Amino acid sequence: MTMKVYEHEGFPNPARVRIAIAEKAVEDQIEFVAVDVMAGDHKKADFLKLNPSGTVPVLELEDGTTIAECTAITEYLDTLSGDISLTGRTPKERATIHMMQRRAEADLLDAVGAYFHNATPGLGAEIEGYQCSDWGYHQKSRAIKGMHYFNDVLSRQNYVAGDQFSMADITAFAGLAFADFAKVDVPAECTNLKAWRERVSQRPSIAA
Amino acid sequence: MTMKVYEHEGFPNPARVRIAIAEKAVEDQIEFVAVDVMAGDHKKADFLKLNPSGTVPVLELEDGTTIAECTAITEYLDTLSGDISLTGRTPKERATIHMMQRRAEADLLDAVGAYFHNATPGLGAEIEGYQCSDWGYHQKSRAIKGMHYFNDVLSRQNYVAGDQFSMADITAFAGLAFADFAKVDVPAECTNLKAWRERVSQRPSIAA
Repeated sequence: MTMKVYEHEGFPNPARVRIAIAEKAVEDQIEFVAVDVMAGDHKKADFLKLNPSGTVPVLELEDGTTIAECTAITEYLDTLSGDISLTGRTPKERATIHMMQRRAEADLLDAVGAYFHNATPGLGAEIEGYQCSDWGYHQKSRAIKGMHYFNDVLSRQNYVAGDQFSMADITAFAGLAFADFAKVDVPAECTNLKAWRERVSQRPSIAA
Repeated sequence: MTMKVYEHEGFPNPARVRIAIAEKAVEDQIEFVAVDVMAGDHKKADFLKLNPSGTVPVLELEDGTTIAECTAITEYLDTLSGDISLTGRTPKERATIHMMQRRAEADLLDAVGAYFHNATPGLGAEIEGYQCSDWGYHQKSRAIKGMHYFNDVLSRQNYVAGDQFSMADITAFAGLAFADFAKVDVPAECTNLKAWRERVSQRPSIAA
């Protein structure tokens, strides 16, 4: 069985799906297809047929069905093997992971992204189009607040959504990687967040 | 078994969870607790203990676990009864519903929300705090584009995520209700979207 993942290696959202694939140990079922985001290929007609939102990554199933949005892709990948669950096994686990995943997206990854794409040159004027720097700076402060929030959460538990690694950790980890890239520093006092990041970065799915 | 839902009746996100509860026919398991959003109670210390993001609705389970974020709440509710599935039964259905749900959020409901909270008086200066009208108007155009996108999707299928009603429809429906409230008109040419809305509004979970 071969599925395709259209992506740009090293970018934040593709990184989320690469980590999920490695955690689920399903690399042998996936063919990666490079999309040149720096050339704006993700905004061109051919790619928009795969994902009208013009974002990477996209998972293409064997029957041609295309799945965009990391949460949706992770939901699918999570059914492919059983040793680890990224989306939870019980209703309460599933709900908690989805909640924390969404917070990691809104308060960290997407907030950093909004700063990067609006208040810095981002990917360059031609690809960015509309930018609103005031909004970008506001989202930067949201990201900093998010770091404090997750630091607090991680003072009470080992992982973002509880005592098990999950897709919420993947999102938060990608958020911090994007923050490094966009030069948004993790506040020095966020020691639980830093310790968690160090621990997560040693997982084979990430360290490899 | 009794769970609590903290909410403000009639508001867009609480409406999503009310519809999900009615679709799942689990009203008898839920006690609704009013939060006075117009008085800013959702931003005060007592409520922030339930949901540090300061948003309604919040589902509180019998054991005191609190679940925020509509997708997460819907994931939980969907396990409580079996006649209809709002989040999908197969991996492909689940992935497609999550993808379309996220699009309905980002390109419709949240875009309208960003317009309302940034480019109109919203809930009033005291509750809104920071506003960025330029960003708000940009998100209004995103919402209009989203309406065209869903209109196109609904020219090929009966519901937002395929041939079955799902949580993606609930999100899109709440997005259009919020658009009415914020005076963002559905373009006249979006006839499939309007027909879908009319059809969905006749479901017992909504018409009641």
